[in-house]
Amino acid sequence: MKRSLEDIAAFIQARILGDASLEIAGIASVGAASTADLVFVEEEKNLPAALNSNAAAVIVGSFAGTHQTSKPLLITDQPRLAFARAAEFLIPADSFHAGVHPTAVVHATANLGRNVEIGERVVIHDNVEIGQGTSIAAGCVIGPDVSIGRDCRLYPNVTIYPASRLGDRVILHAGAVLGSDGFGYVRDKATGKYHKFPQIGRLEVEDDVEIGANSTVDRGALEATRISRGTKIDNLVHVGHNVQIGEDVVIAAQTGLSGSAVVEDAVIIGGQVGIADHVRIQSGAILGAQSGIPSKKVIRGKGVVFWGTPARPITQYLKELAVLARLTKKKT
Amino acid sequence: MKRSLEDIAAFIQARILGDASLEIAGIASVGAASTADLVFVEEEKNLPAALNSNAAAVIVGSFAGTHQTSKPLLITDQPRLAFARAAEFLIPADSFHAGVHPTAVVHATANLGRNVEIGERVVIHDNVEIGQGTSIAAGCVIGPDVSIGRDCRLYPNVTIYPASRLGDRVILHAGAVLGSDGFGYVRDKATGKYHKFPQIGRLEVEDDVEIGANSTVDRGALEATRISRGTKIDNLVHVGHNVQIGEDVVIAAQTGLSGSAVVEDAVIIGGQVGIADHVRIQSGAILGAQSGIPSKKVIRGKGVVFWGTPARPITQYLKELAVLARLTKKKT
Amino acid sequence: MKRSLEDIAAFIQARILGDASLEIAGIASVGAASTADLVFVEEEKNLPAALNSNAAAVIVGSFAGTHQTSKPLLITDQPRLAFARAAEFLIPADSFHAGVHPTAVVHATANLGRNVEIGERVVIHDNVEIGQGTSIAAGCVIGPDVSIGRDCRLYPNVTIYPASRLGDRVILHAGAVLGSDGFGYVRDKATGKYHKFPQIGRLEVEDDVEIGANSTVDRGALEATRISRGTKIDNLVHVGHNVQIGEDVVIAAQTGLSGSAVVEDAVIIGGQVGIADHVRIQSGAILGAQSGIPSKKVIRGKGVVFWGTPARPITQYLKELAVLARLTKKKT
Repeated sequence: MKRSLEDIAAFIQARILGDASLEIAGIASVGAASTADLVFVEEEKNLPAALNSNAAAVIVGSFAGTHQTSKPLLITDQPRLAFARAAEFLIPADSFHAGVHPTAVVHATANLGRNVEIGERVVIHDNVEIGQGTSIAAGCVIGPDVSIGRDCRLYPNVTIYPASRLGDRVILHAGAVLGSDGFGYVRDKATGKYHKFPQIGRLEVEDDVEIGANSTVDRGALEATRISRGTKIDNLVHVGHNVQIGEDVVIAAQTGLSGSAVVEDAVIIGGQVGIADHVRIQSGAILGAQSGIPSKKVIRGKGVVFWGTPARPITQYLKELAVLARLTKKKT
Repeated sequence: MKRSLEDIAAFIQARILGDASLEIAGIASVGAASTADLVFVEEEKNLPAALNSNAAAVIVGSFAGTHQTSKPLLITDQPRLAFARAAEFLIPADSFHAGVHPTAVVHATANLGRNVEIGERVVIHDNVEIGQGTSIAAGCVIGPDVSIGRDCRLYPNVTIYPASRLGDRVILHAGAVLGSDGFGYVRDKATGKYHKFPQIGRLEVEDDVEIGANSTVDRGALEATRISRGTKIDNLVHVGHNVQIGEDVVIAAQTGLSGSAVVEDAVIIGGQVGIADHVRIQSGAILGAQSGIPSKKVIRGKGVVFWGTPARPITQYLKELAVLARLTKKKT
Repeated sequence: MKRSLEDIAAFIQARILGDASLEIAGIASVGAASTADLVFVEEEKNLPAALNSNAAAVIVGSFAGTHQTSKPLLITDQPRLAFARAAEFLIPADSFHAGVHPTAVVHATANLGRNVEIGERVVIHDNVEIGQGTSIAAGCVIGPDVSIGRDCRLYPNVTIYPASRLGDRVILHAGAVLGSDGFGYVRDKATGKYHKFPQIGRLEVEDDVEIGANSTVDRGALEATRISRGTKIDNLVHVGHNVQIGEDVVIAAQTGLSGSAVVEDAVIIGGQVGIADHVRIQSGAILGAQSGIPSKKVIRGKGVVFWGTPARPITQYLKELAVLARLTKKKT
């Protein structure tokens, strides 16, 4: 659907420089833009390339506010954010077919909201609640007593264990597993054999959480695992039982959080990070890729980057690397 | 189902102090206990909180044997183990509906034991054997010639490749893949292209093994991959072809074992550990999270903790960290 | 199916020493060979064991060219490669049942080539193209506008997101997810909340690629993610958005590649390696297991092995370890 620059500017709250009536059909990278596409530029040095591209118009920072340019500009403080929001405005959501596919198996006691989409071969067990506008794609299995909010999107082959609760606008990518048993056993000193510790707690996922493909989130052992509002989790991430994750946390791929770890709000966690049991990551800390946080450790420091195993401030880690490099030179 | 303290004490072999006729309905953490719940305490310092909680009764260690307390006590050498066993006694197994769901596709040559549960949309290929009391949840795909023992539990969307063999009481969590092809190729020196090395071996999983969500276990290349009795594997773990894992081994999330690695009995492996090909971990060794064992290495030492990449005894690793920290202080 | 040594030798281009009319039924390891099996030996010291085994005949290197032996030999420069090719010749492909299973849901606009196999409960959406000879196993979900080439093999419960393109002879193992949304968000400085950056690019997978169980490959954000011809990827690997992987690359299990990383041809990557965003790994480099490549770094060196985080040449890494070990000795 085409939109005028004027309408786009109003939606993303940008200032227009140039022809406000221009019609835009989509968004693109500078390299791939066609003549009806909008592009964006964050750094002034990249503006000439955007102006020389095929793009129809450019979202730019305020640095461009006085330029005379060959293309219309949309000027904003946060060009990347404005571009993301323009995409929401311009690109229709994925095709959505309200209704229950005849091959789905939906228990008679399940309660489906208005305008839901239940795809091919979906299985929905007893006492499930699904909010309006939610889409559940082919092959998903939703266990008994699960509650899913409004406008959620479950991609194919997701499994949700019994009694898990999801808020609104939650996105679960293909193959994700939510609410599985935690990894808890007790070793009998007499026999050496392991007995399963009860894994009967809940999983609570709040609004606007997104969880990547083939990630796994265990339910609590006796209480609850919680992922709070707005948190984004990448592919192949493991979240153990009783973990508490705050709001607006970002966790990159293949990171693992062990049982009872606590991650406070606005923490940023790189890929392949390992967080042991009962760790606390305080608000605003940043964990570099592959870093490791030992059991029960508290990490504090808003905006401080930690690296290595055991994780230490990156400044310290880099000093250690420099010392090591120097020592090896002495020896050769 | 309610049970008397007396019956529970008999089942878990504990000594009762207090009213043996008290009826218990469930188990809980101290913080969340209701007045019909049983809780447990492992350390004496935590006993007052348990006694002040809503709980009906407390499983405790022998340290509490002479206390006069406000609640009945169940006294045992291993309170956590006793609590886990009490949970088995008190909590009914997940709902189980014996029978084959009409949407399941079961080959005519498959041999199902008595009292099995085959869920929605399960696919069972030719010559599969399934033992009595086993439950296979929605969306699982069981390849030809697979054999599954008694009282196993397969959660949704598990895939088992042809000819894999599972013992009794095996638990497979959602999305697990068993018996997939190993990662073996031969590079043609003349063309630089890779040819698939034959991956035609078996996978053998013995009794009482539990495997976590989205974990993958490859079959042998020419012989067998084996996971022995009582071993517990967490989520997103990778087990390569020809790996031999002993009895009562514990492997935490996101650990990977490369081809032909051998892990002897009673080894404990932390999360995100990397074990290269042809490694041997001797009985009773403990590998700290994120440690890495290089190709063909033998790790020995019952009860010794190893850490780092390449893994060394943790005492050595910690000394190295201390030396590094001191050297960087000298320089600033 | 039995084959004569003569026919096998012709297929793998080996020279026969001994009875060319001998009939061979299969391949095996030396330890497990029956009297109709072919085995192989790469190192001269292992030849006696092969000759003393039950095997019918032995594929060996040219070192064996003048031996008088008790079994026929097939002599070749690359015995392991010849063995792999002999396996292709001797072992029938997995059972293949051309046709569409009645429980599959295939959209009317999908275009299936001749002789395809569509398994139980497969879902194929609109405008999908599937080339001849391709097999799609039970539970796979193929999104709209996906194109799959000839003679591909998809194992059970694979998910392919819309508009992904696969070449010929691609193998996808169970639970793999292709074309999922990349992990891209923009944080609004004003609110602290994350907005989804558009993830509307494509995924292109070229001929002869194999991808392991439960691996995930994201589509591009605005452009394309690409995996080039002949590349082999193990289980539980993560490939982020916009990643470009060259030809004949090998990536072991649990490795992760972040957004926009570039891996040139013939690179070898160990298990659990972490490659940050915008990294370039130049042709022929070798990354040791668990190594980590920081953001935007370029790794160069054909045949050079890198290790550690941040990755450095292994010779340097080993020197550092030696220095550290020595320093700790001084102190005790």
